[in-house]
Amino acid sequence: MVLYMIGIGLSDEKDISVRGLEAVRACESVYLENYTSALQCSVDKLEMLYGKEIIIADREMVEKRAEETILEDSGLRDTAFLVIGDVFGATTHLDLMMRAKKLGIEVKVINNASILTAVGMTGLELYKFGKVTSIPFDNKDIDTPSKVYEMNSKNGLHTLFLLDLDPKKERFMSVNDALIYLSDKIHGDPLCVGCAGLGSSDPVIRVGKASELVKSEFSRFPQCLIIPGELHFMEEEALGNF
Amino acid sequence: MVLYMIGIGLSDEKDISVRGLEAVRACESVYLENYTSALQCSVDKLEMLYGKEIIIADREMVEKRAEETILEDSGLRDTAFLVIGDVFGATTHLDLMMRAKKLGIEVKVINNASILTAVGMTGLELYKFGKVTSIPFDNKDIDTPSKVYEMNSKNGLHTLFLLDLDPKKERFMSVNDALIYLSDKIHGDPLCVGCAGLGSSDPVIRVGKASELVKSEFSRFPQCLIIPGELHFMEEEALGNF
Repeated sequence: MVLYMIGIGLSDEKDISVRGLEAVRACESVYLENYTSALQCSVDKLEMLYGKEIIIADREMVEKRAEETILEDSGLRDTAFLVIGDVFGATTHLDLMMRAKKLGIEVKVINNASILTAVGMTGLELYKFGKVTSIPFDNKDIDTPSKVYEMNSKNGLHTLFLLDLDPKKERFMSVNDALIYLSDKIHGDPLCVGCAGLGSSDPVIRVGKASELVKSEFSRFPQCLIIPGELHFMEEEALGNF
Repeated sequence: MVLYMIGIGLSDEKDISVRGLEAVRACESVYLENYTSALQCSVDKLEMLYGKEIIIADREMVEKRAEETILEDSGLRDTAFLVIGDVFGATTHLDLMMRAKKLGIEVKVINNASILTAVGMTGLELYKFGKVTSIPFDNKDIDTPSKVYEMNSKNGLHTLFLLDLDPKKERFMSVNDALIYLSDKIHGDPLCVGCAGLGSSDPVIRVGKASELVKSEFSRFPQCLIIPGELHFMEEEALGNF
């Protein structure tokens, strides 16, 4: 039996690859991990295209009860574990793969688009990004994001800030929230790039100084924030489009 | 008219997304960029699934003659520009998008899997990678890769080395070539991760000291090399699988 770990991309039911769709349709059990990211379509839409009933896997199921759910299924029948974006965006997925392998279950990975490269649409070169970082909701005493930014910035590199979300509570951090959080932690008023709905057919990208962009409202989620490092003239020109 | 810039993933014809496939099938002209990466299937296979004839776009066409080929087509009819991996892996694609926009052509981007996140399959955490770097064929006097490695390494971060290729001449840099090149440039004998065929259904991943891995032959292409920075115990355990 095989555990297929399948990235389903960033936006809606049609972002799955043809290979991924064939695999899902051939599986008997289908789980959707819904706590590290959020889709921009309903689960019904996925079920309709896949022709399968989807079991929602929350963090508690994946991290505490996988043995009696996903991994038990994988031992008995071909099982799909769907991940929004690409497969290995979070430690929790790697952990699941390793637990499956330990149980002797064959794991097949089917990759897909990730926010980490979808940011290329902003015009910022992917090879000029430094370490990525995340801003959590409970961030009063957290300074990792600003430390990562300082390190990248010192080396002329762009910093991508992923923003926290809790789909269960429909709680999403906005670019505004992120900029307010960062305003205490970083010096000056850097040029920033705010993104919403990247990977969908109508992404929103806005560019401006932090002090301006913080006034801008983005209505869609998930969102992310980039503070560029040194800009090549072509990157500057590309940012000028937004 | 619309210029669809469509990532077709890393391995074969079935890696395109359902959305991408629908777009290609609705386009009248279809170009495939074939100089920044290489597919693991024939163009015939793509044509068969897409039901379209594919025009191969080499660097000269995209960078020097786009106005009279791709961009002219895009002004007259819906046109697809297919990119192996994700869409914005290289400056040349950003440049094409910007030239299209200047001509008033609407551009739609359909993302897909990239080697930059497919490396997550090794067990190394994506958020612990620093800046990515490339090793070119003509590298005698090139020291950017080792400088990037030093910077990342100093900060405890992993370094992904993309390896040069020239699909027209069927010339591909191997992990061995990369390790031989690096052996002059970096100190010590670091743990390395060599990868071939990432994103396909049977990727090859091997882990070992540089001095051991250099003896290992990988038969498939493209290949890439990672030198990990500081390892979390879970990353260490994951690497132990290979």
